[in-house]
Amino acid sequence: MSRIDGRTPEQLRPVTIERAWSKHAEGSVLVSFGDTKVLCTASFTEGVPRWRRGSGEGWVTGEYAMLPRATNTRGDRESVRGKIGGRTHEISRLIGRSLRAVVDTRALGENTVVLDCDVLQADGGTRTAAITGAYVALADAVAWARAKKLVKAGVKPLTGGVSAVSVGIVDGVPLLDLCYEEDVRAETDMNVVCTDDGRFVEVQGTAEGAPFDRRELNALLDLAAAGCGELALAQAAALESAG
Amino acid sequence: MSRIDGRTPEQLRPVTIERAWSKHAEGSVLVSFGDTKVLCTASFTEGVPRWRRGSGEGWVTGEYAMLPRATNTRGDRESVRGKIGGRTHEISRLIGRSLRAVVDTRALGENTVVLDCDVLQADGGTRTAAITGAYVALADAVAWARAKKLVKAGVKPLTGGVSAVSVGIVDGVPLLDLCYEEDVRAETDMNVVCTDDGRFVEVQGTAEGAPFDRRELNALLDLAAAGCGELALAQAAALESAG
Amino acid sequence: MSRIDGRTPEQLRPVTIERAWSKHAEGSVLVSFGDTKVLCTASFTEGVPRWRRGSGEGWVTGEYAMLPRATNTRGDRESVRGKIGGRTHEISRLIGRSLRAVVDTRALGENTVVLDCDVLQADGGTRTAAITGAYVALADAVAWARAKKLVKAGVKPLTGGVSAVSVGIVDGVPLLDLCYEEDVRAETDMNVVCTDDGRFVEVQGTAEGAPFDRRELNALLDLAAAGCGELALAQAAALESAG
Amino acid sequence: MSRIDGRTPEQLRPVTIERAWSKHAEGSVLVSFGDTKVLCTASFTEGVPRWRRGSGEGWVTGEYAMLPRATNTRGDRESVRGKIGGRTHEISRLIGRSLRAVVDTRALGENTVVLDCDVLQADGGTRTAAITGAYVALADAVAWARAKKLVKAGVKPLTGGVSAVSVGIVDGVPLLDLCYEEDVRAETDMNVVCTDDGRFVEVQGTAEGAPFDRRELNALLDLAAAGCGELALAQAAALESAG
Amino acid sequence: MSRIDGRTPEQLRPVTIERAWSKHAEGSVLVSFGDTKVLCTASFTEGVPRWRRGSGEGWVTGEYAMLPRATNTRGDRESVRGKIGGRTHEISRLIGRSLRAVVDTRALGENTVVLDCDVLQADGGTRTAAITGAYVALADAVAWARAKKLVKAGVKPLTGGVSAVSVGIVDGVPLLDLCYEEDVRAETDMNVVCTDDGRFVEVQGTAEGAPFDRRELNALLDLAAAGCGELALAQAAALESAG
Amino acid sequence: MSRIDGRTPEQLRPVTIERAWSKHAEGSVLVSFGDTKVLCTASFTEGVPRWRRGSGEGWVTGEYAMLPRATNTRGDRESVRGKIGGRTHEISRLIGRSLRAVVDTRALGENTVVLDCDVLQADGGTRTAAITGAYVALADAVAWARAKKLVKAGVKPLTGGVSAVSVGIVDGVPLLDLCYEEDVRAETDMNVVCTDDGRFVEVQGTAEGAPFDRRELNALLDLAAAGCGELALAQAAALESAG
Repeated sequence: MSRIDGRTPEQLRPVTIERAWSKHAEGSVLVSFGDTKVLCTASFTEGVPRWRRGSGEGWVTGEYAMLPRATNTRGDRESVRGKIGGRTHEISRLIGRSLRAVVDTRALGENTVVLDCDVLQADGGTRTAAITGAYVALADAVAWARAKKLVKAGVKPLTGGVSAVSVGIVDGVPLLDLCYEEDVRAETDMNVVCTDDGRFVEVQGTAEGAPFDRRELNALLDLAAAGCGELALAQAAALESAG
Repeated sequence: MSRIDGRTPEQLRPVTIERAWSKHAEGSVLVSFGDTKVLCTASFTEGVPRWRRGSGEGWVTGEYAMLPRATNTRGDRESVRGKIGGRTHEISRLIGRSLRAVVDTRALGENTVVLDCDVLQADGGTRTAAITGAYVALADAVAWARAKKLVKAGVKPLTGGVSAVSVGIVDGVPLLDLCYEEDVRAETDMNVVCTDDGRFVEVQGTAEGAPFDRRELNALLDLAAAGCGELALAQAAALESAG
Repeated sequence: MSRIDGRTPEQLRPVTIERAWSKHAEGSVLVSFGDTKVLCTASFTEGVPRWRRGSGEGWVTGEYAMLPRATNTRGDRESVRGKIGGRTHEISRLIGRSLRAVVDTRALGENTVVLDCDVLQADGGTRTAAITGAYVALADAVAWARAKKLVKAGVKPLTGGVSAVSVGIVDGVPLLDLCYEEDVRAETDMNVVCTDDGRFVEVQGTAEGAPFDRRELNALLDLAAAGCGELALAQAAALESAG
Repeated sequence: MSRIDGRTPEQLRPVTIERAWSKHAEGSVLVSFGDTKVLCTASFTEGVPRWRRGSGEGWVTGEYAMLPRATNTRGDRESVRGKIGGRTHEISRLIGRSLRAVVDTRALGENTVVLDCDVLQADGGTRTAAITGAYVALADAVAWARAKKLVKAGVKPLTGGVSAVSVGIVDGVPLLDLCYEEDVRAETDMNVVCTDDGRFVEVQGTAEGAPFDRRELNALLDLAAAGCGELALAQAAALESAG
Repeated sequence: MSRIDGRTPEQLRPVTIERAWSKHAEGSVLVSFGDTKVLCTASFTEGVPRWRRGSGEGWVTGEYAMLPRATNTRGDRESVRGKIGGRTHEISRLIGRSLRAVVDTRALGENTVVLDCDVLQADGGTRTAAITGAYVALADAVAWARAKKLVKAGVKPLTGGVSAVSVGIVDGVPLLDLCYEEDVRAETDMNVVCTDDGRFVEVQGTAEGAPFDRRELNALLDLAAAGCGELALAQAAALESAG
Repeated sequence: MSRIDGRTPEQLRPVTIERAWSKHAEGSVLVSFGDTKVLCTASFTEGVPRWRRGSGEGWVTGEYAMLPRATNTRGDRESVRGKIGGRTHEISRLIGRSLRAVVDTRALGENTVVLDCDVLQADGGTRTAAITGAYVALADAVAWARAKKLVKAGVKPLTGGVSAVSVGIVDGVPLLDLCYEEDVRAETDMNVVCTDDGRFVEVQGTAEGAPFDRRELNALLDLAAAGCGELALAQAAALESAG
């Protein structure tokens, strides 16, 4: 059985990671998972929020948003509505937590990195593309800071890599990296965030239709772990190329 | 090794489910998981939100909040700050999704049930207590509606039961139903929502400290599934007693 | 003529004052006036708001809210609407003023007490129950602070007691402590706050229907003063019992 | 003993009521109580809010605000802060209730009158000046509607007049119509709204310093009733003059 | 061809500038351009916003608002809606920029002047009347500060005068100082702010109907420059009279 | 004298107009003026806002925003702050007015086009790039609607083209199309919107430093008109290429 776009169940969409997309940000990446395109910028600033001052530790946080016409029908701007929706809040928090899982805040020193992930075009998997791109932007920002001597020599603010992928069960079949049409039809939908040594940072599985059993959960985790492994290679390749 | 409150790793805190706590709501439950106390009310109203009218299907949603002094230090009211925080949003959405997993919206007909879960006292596991209590309140509200002939005879708006529990790894040991002090120290924290036939509705695991591996994930899922099984019995017992 | 719940015109509903309801707050009271139940917590913190720093004086303030299903039909949460309604504002301000009337802010020192009054179930008279319960919670918080030596020995931050009751004219008859059904039908509605030595702190009378004359006003004030006297005794009894 | 501005205790400040101040509004009055100046406009529109449609009854409501520099030091605009303060809410509600006390909403028919009371200059007593001026603006708007045949012939939407005045105890002496300096020093402050036949619509007394006793309360009510009587004459004189 | 109110195309409406309108503000002007009436107050305070501290320079800013019934039909209050509309924002910013064009912030020293321009009655040209009146209020506030020795002797915080006027093309004819009815019908609408030596501070022209050509633009600029010249004389005359 | 980037005073930066940038929107353009990059999408929907229903006329509106790190230092998101700033409001309104100047709303029929202009990277002139790009997106959306027969055959919803450019005086020299560094140093800054037949839609000139005289204004208008002429050619070339 082939998928809507011809992939096999365990196949990622084409992934591109374009570094240094913006001239202003300390790190900036345009990441695409198929037709999903997210602009991830890492803004490095000296100093930390008030509640962390004097701790000797840095802070890393994320903000996620969609352009109003990133999707098939236009959505209202959250700035115009005057408040951020629950989904946006949830994904922003997920991005921050995921990146902090590979940051040694003490090695970062009292500096802050904000990861802005703005979805320019959406076709499923925007949060997982965002995390995967944001890691590369973060790595570039840390390298920039090291070059500027804003982080100490000899310390490693990044303890490893992190990437994320969605998996789900569609018509009873576990699939990797759902596009929008698959996502809408999925009975179960899961987002998995892994470190580059194959451990889990986040596992968020939701039964959209029927509840899922342990066997299905295991199949999804297998797919996701393999997918994150591939993404880690793509990130490493991007970071090795000239920025 | 015994836990801070003397429990074994696989032991729940004392659970109480007090039905008909409020005279106004169609279903109302004061649930406690140890010192965590949540008031869950189910408000049944005829009609559905505009976007669902004419569909023949009902709607079930949840709202979660904490009283300002439910916690050890007072938190500002979200009404005073003028906006709902990300955590509140996230938990409200989780409660709604969890309950909808056991609702046949077509059998419910064009009726709405809002599940308000207000934390009166917090000691860890407020979201899982909320889901567990809200299911009982929902069952009472559906029974009320059936008695009032607001749902058709012969249909079953509830397709099963649902409960939730937290699990986590503290000092390397997987523990069931974390109290606040354990939660703060957990390296990995997971909330699991299960149906009463043992399938999963939601699995949300987060590495607060070091990432977790597949073996640890499996141990946590085992603990959670067993804990939800016990909670399902407590819910059934409460629903069998005179309301 | 007997009232809807069998009381005489000058009779209070059954009043209960349950201290130490919450494990976290410095003072906490679940007060009930009949079916009206309000959870009052007193949060004592060292320090005062910026505008009062260095004055040597403390600060006492109140916040009032209703759970969404405290009433017969569910109300929207003010946090979700993003703003506090006029009624909530008005009652919060009334609670703060009423309690400050018996506080010697200089004796309190530069400390702050916030009185949160959350209505768990409403059946008329929520603001008067809130004030009556909040006084007991405040007294417990002050005693806690004295034990912790956060207020000076030998000073009395509380200059007396304070309680409140509603009165109104229904079908031409002045009644004490209106329940919801009476409140809806009242031509005139008055809330009176008194000290425990029988003086007035607040008198708020409103003609809901026909304006009222001086004779009616006097009858209402007589009823209210007597009612507050009884409430002062109930408060004293509660404070004398083991907390 | 003479007051700060030379008045006797039972003397009002000079009161002026200037009708037809604005060319747009159906009724508009610039009222002054000494240096307190409030612009009151009555906007008459056909139709009522959604919740009142089909009832055959009209609606009257009030909104109060201060210009930022109406006071001695500039206050932030509530529009800029993005929310209305508790004091503004409270006074707006008071104005609406006070005017509705003299409106027969059935005779008004399904029409709405909004009374906007904007304080151009404040020197104490702004809410009482607002109510006193708003009544005259309302009377003019009703006359306008009658001329336009928007209210039925032969019915009387206004059942009487209404005015308001502040009273208070300063240095132990009950005073009528406090200016700002007296207001700040008052131990007890009371706002009283009366109909033109001498009955009470609202009585709001607050102990700012020491609680007050029944004798003091009576003295204040006497002063206020006499003051409202004088204001009713001033309103009548203004309405008799050419608009 | 004569205009709706009998003026010639190059004629201003009657302009009045009433100083010292308010007893509280350091400068206050009630300005009228025909039936447009704007109350402009200048609030002088020592100190500057945080971002300007230590710069040795002062700050001047403007806020514009309309009373709800300043216009022919009542508009909702921006404070009630909880946000400021785009038009209000735009005009507030224009007022601030226009006044700053004639302020030497270094000579002003670390002091702030806020110019509040509240439209009491609107009939076209409210923003231009506001700027014209605000300049006079600002001049009075600066004189007040000089008398209080809050600005240094021998420096001139004001480098010149500033005034503003609207022009537009109605039925093909360029007109000066449009009233509301003309404004509504204008094909092109332009607001021009000039210094009292005839140079431009702001030129804002908008094609409401057909785009305009260079010849039309020139005709409008000629009219506006002449109009501002007349307004500068009126401002000077007002400032020479006893305040 | 050559400019910071080597241009002559009357030279535009390199302009690129990339059509069909997004797969979802009916029209979408990535426009760049040098390093300024704006994504403009045109969302065509059937129907109009409530206030325009039944008029037979369509509606065109614009919304402008910047990504938080479009600029050299990161700005807070307006969605997070909960309100839109004055500058954003002003530019959104300008974009809407500018595009409506070339739309025959009757020919458009009761359809709505929203032009979202999101700045991905900023280097001066973002609003003028936005208008220039939005016109091309609008033309594509209208062509799409014509192909879908959502606009009538034989009518022309677009009456012409529209483009915009900034001009300013830097060190006394009038310059076309300012980059950020020039913009910051400009004494006078002007944004000009022209139709493709050389008439003006908007002229907004502001003295940032010294006021400007008529001769300078004329020089700026000459530069802007020539610049818009070049931009009109670039738009036409883009629209002639395969979309």
